[in-house]
Amino acid sequence: MDNINISQAVIKRLPRYYRYLGELADEGVSRISSRELSQLMHVTASQIRQDLNHFGGFGQQGYGYNVRNLYAEIGKILGLDKNHKLVVIGAGHLGQALCNYENFERRGFHILGIFDADPAIVGMKIRKVSVSPMDKLEDFIASNDIDIAVLTIPKSSAVEVAETLVKCNIKAIWNFAHVDLPVPDYVMVENVHLSESLMQLSYNLGRR
Amino acid sequence: MDNINISQAVIKRLPRYYRYLGELADEGVSRISSRELSQLMHVTASQIRQDLNHFGGFGQQGYGYNVRNLYAEIGKILGLDKNHKLVVIGAGHLGQALCNYENFERRGFHILGIFDADPAIVGMKIRKVSVSPMDKLEDFIASNDIDIAVLTIPKSSAVEVAETLVKCNIKAIWNFAHVDLPVPDYVMVENVHLSESLMQLSYNLGRR
Repeated sequence: MDNINISQAVIKRLPRYYRYLGELADEGVSRISSRELSQLMHVTASQIRQDLNHFGGFGQQGYGYNVRNLYAEIGKILGLDKNHKLVVIGAGHLGQALCNYENFERRGFHILGIFDADPAIVGMKIRKVSVSPMDKLEDFIASNDIDIAVLTIPKSSAVEVAETLVKCNIKAIWNFAHVDLPVPDYVMVENVHLSESLMQLSYNLGRR
Repeated sequence: MDNINISQAVIKRLPRYYRYLGELADEGVSRISSRELSQLMHVTASQIRQDLNHFGGFGQQGYGYNVRNLYAEIGKILGLDKNHKLVVIGAGHLGQALCNYENFERRGFHILGIFDADPAIVGMKIRKVSVSPMDKLEDFIASNDIDIAVLTIPKSSAVEVAETLVKCNIKAIWNFAHVDLPVPDYVMVENVHLSESLMQLSYNLGRR
């Protein structure tokens, strides 16, 4: 599959296809045309065909898409056929919320360690994992082959922690701290800036 | 200001300008050129000039931008000079995390009510607000002039609750439920689909 140069705009849409196809499969739908899928998802059929053509195009003229096949293929493209090992850094409310979200595990994202700088929180158990102190982080990442770090700490300490993560050869950071992390290009960062999302809603509310 | 037809791509970038300008103001920087701002933000100077020109262009040739003015103007554009009244629906881990996030209040987003369907959670206090049962939601929205509803409930109940919110004349929904809400166009929806963000990170990790 020639999927090296796919734009992030297409990639952003893949999880939504994945979600709809999963629901269709659960409902027992075995095949669907791009037209039917477009009505369901409120996007154009040509958009759907274009997007899915990036990955070889799983549809057949006159038949449509095989729902289970396409679901599995998109899952593979998204890396959901592999297991990922995560640490969560910052066991405050948001960190705890993420640790308690069972769906991540179902998708292959396993939270193996939780870390916090606050001694009052260290030792607390969140589902199966006890919160560890920050000075155990580097050893833990090395000995558990962690590939994703989730940052749910205040912006004041996020940059320093990110630098440590780079030293530890972390490959990807899911960043909830409200700051741009100065990491090398080979470290993947996905930002979730909640207050920026709320500001966008506020803008649209004002222009309504 | 002619800001009716600004693309969502520009709007998405505004909160980031707002953040950087706020930090510069806090550091006592009074003016900055588009070139300096571009180095700081790792975007091109022409992108910055183009984006800010949508709002009348606050810069002056040879002077640059007045940091405090531009910060205040972008804040106004984002509607942060107004107070917003919110309810959070779903007092699970994520709902609690959002209710505990003090920064929202500082930006004018006031959480006045928290609702949950689980009788075991009703009555629990989160900061200053007690969790109310769902059957109080409609009256509460009407009598408190709520404009934004935050949905932190499972997807199974999100569509039904969204329909109730539309009946209550809610103007905007900040949706964390992993489902597309079927609401009329005049209701603004901003989705935060955390698992989709994690899938995107997983994709990029695989293509690394």
